[in-house]
Amino acid sequence: MTTFAWPDADAIGAAAARIAGHAHRTPVLRARSLERDLGCELHFKAEHLQRAGAFKFRGAANAIFGLAAADARRGVVTQSSGNHGAAVALACAMRGIPCTVVVPGEAPRVKLEAIRRHGARIVPCDVPQAARDAVSARVLAETGGHYVPPFEDPRIVAGQATATLELLEAVPDIELVVSPVSGGGLASGAALALAAFAPRARLVGAEPAGAADAHASLAAGHRITGLRPDTICDGLRAELGPTTFEILRRHAEAILTVPDARTLAAMRMIWERLKQVVEPSGAIGLAAILEHPERFRGRRVGVILSGGNVDLDRLPW
Amino acid sequence: MTTFAWPDADAIGAAAARIAGHAHRTPVLRARSLERDLGCELHFKAEHLQRAGAFKFRGAANAIFGLAAADARRGVVTQSSGNHGAAVALACAMRGIPCTVVVPGEAPRVKLEAIRRHGARIVPCDVPQAARDAVSARVLAETGGHYVPPFEDPRIVAGQATATLELLEAVPDIELVVSPVSGGGLASGAALALAAFAPRARLVGAEPAGAADAHASLAAGHRITGLRPDTICDGLRAELGPTTFEILRRHAEAILTVPDARTLAAMRMIWERLKQVVEPSGAIGLAAILEHPERFRGRRVGVILSGGNVDLDRLPW
Repeated sequence: MTTFAWPDADAIGAAAARIAGHAHRTPVLRARSLERDLGCELHFKAEHLQRAGAFKFRGAANAIFGLAAADARRGVVTQSSGNHGAAVALACAMRGIPCTVVVPGEAPRVKLEAIRRHGARIVPCDVPQAARDAVSARVLAETGGHYVPPFEDPRIVAGQATATLELLEAVPDIELVVSPVSGGGLASGAALALAAFAPRARLVGAEPAGAADAHASLAAGHRITGLRPDTICDGLRAELGPTTFEILRRHAEAILTVPDARTLAAMRMIWERLKQVVEPSGAIGLAAILEHPERFRGRRVGVILSGGNVDLDRLPW
Repeated sequence: MTTFAWPDADAIGAAAARIAGHAHRTPVLRARSLERDLGCELHFKAEHLQRAGAFKFRGAANAIFGLAAADARRGVVTQSSGNHGAAVALACAMRGIPCTVVVPGEAPRVKLEAIRRHGARIVPCDVPQAARDAVSARVLAETGGHYVPPFEDPRIVAGQATATLELLEAVPDIELVVSPVSGGGLASGAALALAAFAPRARLVGAEPAGAADAHASLAAGHRITGLRPDTICDGLRAELGPTTFEILRRHAEAILTVPDARTLAAMRMIWERLKQVVEPSGAIGLAAILEHPERFRGRRVGVILSGGNVDLDRLPW
């Protein structure tokens, strides 16, 4: 299994410099009454306010604005049923290069529309990973384009790490950071940012109980694949890659699993108390705190609100 | 008809100083892609992120923290079916004094819960203004408390004016400010803040077509009362007071009327594009821009998102 060198402080700093002026520096939100209720300090990194509505734009921008002109000219291909696709589409539109997104069957309508709005070509494919890979390979062969993976890539992980770097700049003495875990780009970026810039702070991953391959993998000590995801968190159905697994095995304090009902309660709480529209996947960090309160009591906690793309006609309550 | 002296720069500055440390300094939000679509610069003053979820806390805090100790001790009475009641309840709780809110029949559940959460006593009454006044008078006689009106009061208008003062501090060269209009506390405060601190900028009011007494009153040149409000904007059903009418007659460039369908479209747009939970009343400023785009094209516009208290189980789409 091939892996890549983990981004270090220099790589994360270079990503921050590369995406500055393209990505938003998102705010860190607080809600004191919620903190009183939960007995811990909460600093919400508002990545649902990132361009294209999710942290994914950070990694996409780092990859795409880092391409050599000759590579960029032939365009970019990626695989995504959601926020990563929209982020790559937007970054390509900003750089003025063609973009193709290979989209497996079940993508949410709002996320498909976002990919389209940013001018990318959509190539549908079947859901199984083998089908996605076959279609991606065909598109790459046809276009000669450059492939930008959704998470298992040093440029993506370094880009996602900048969310945690900014959180640390706003709250230097943070003790714990809670990140959603899917393919592990955001969470492993967070882990590496903490290791590089705040070595006393710890990363906690939050994963749906119905898509808990990271939790299972860390417990087993090797990567477990092929689980069948069953969760309302449409952004958290991927599996860790070989490298993101290694980073989390080394650096994560824990991966907490959260039942969907708790994630929905957290999502409502964020809508009602913070007045912020987050998608289910974006609420799982707070849900992990509600589910495992003892771990967080009295601590200074950063929570990454990872995305806000949700179909208002199909709210899950 | 008794009126009150209009708050000037000194009164607005004193209100800002009095509420500092109690009220939030809310952020000013932008969404560049929305600006491109609408052809104007939009600076959203995020009062839905104010304490108790609406701008109302500014006026309430200014009135309640300004009370002499002897008056405060006997407690406060107000009349409200919504955000003003919750704001007064919270400000009283913060000052540690009793609060009674006289609530007419049809208050939204989330707003009633907010009044209760902040520890106020609720006294229900019938909807007609005469019934509300009779019950309020009885409660005042019983408690010896101090009455804090919802808008027709110099402390309230000066408090609400601080929202526009902060907007001007963030965007000094604003050209137009769009404010919802109901009883006129927010809008007349905005008008006076502009007159005092940015005399070249103009105020535009936004009012539901089904509750357009301010539009009718300004057109007639005298205050028109007794219209029967019919709008989904539950925060915009009050009528101008004698003084708020005079302030708007003198200072408003226009009162634009907006059909509810447009307000709903604007509300969705704010949820989807800004990822902010605003209530219908809070979206009417953007709705006025969508309804009357020619007036705003190419201009630098401030839009007050006035509140975010909405029942997620009864979304209006």
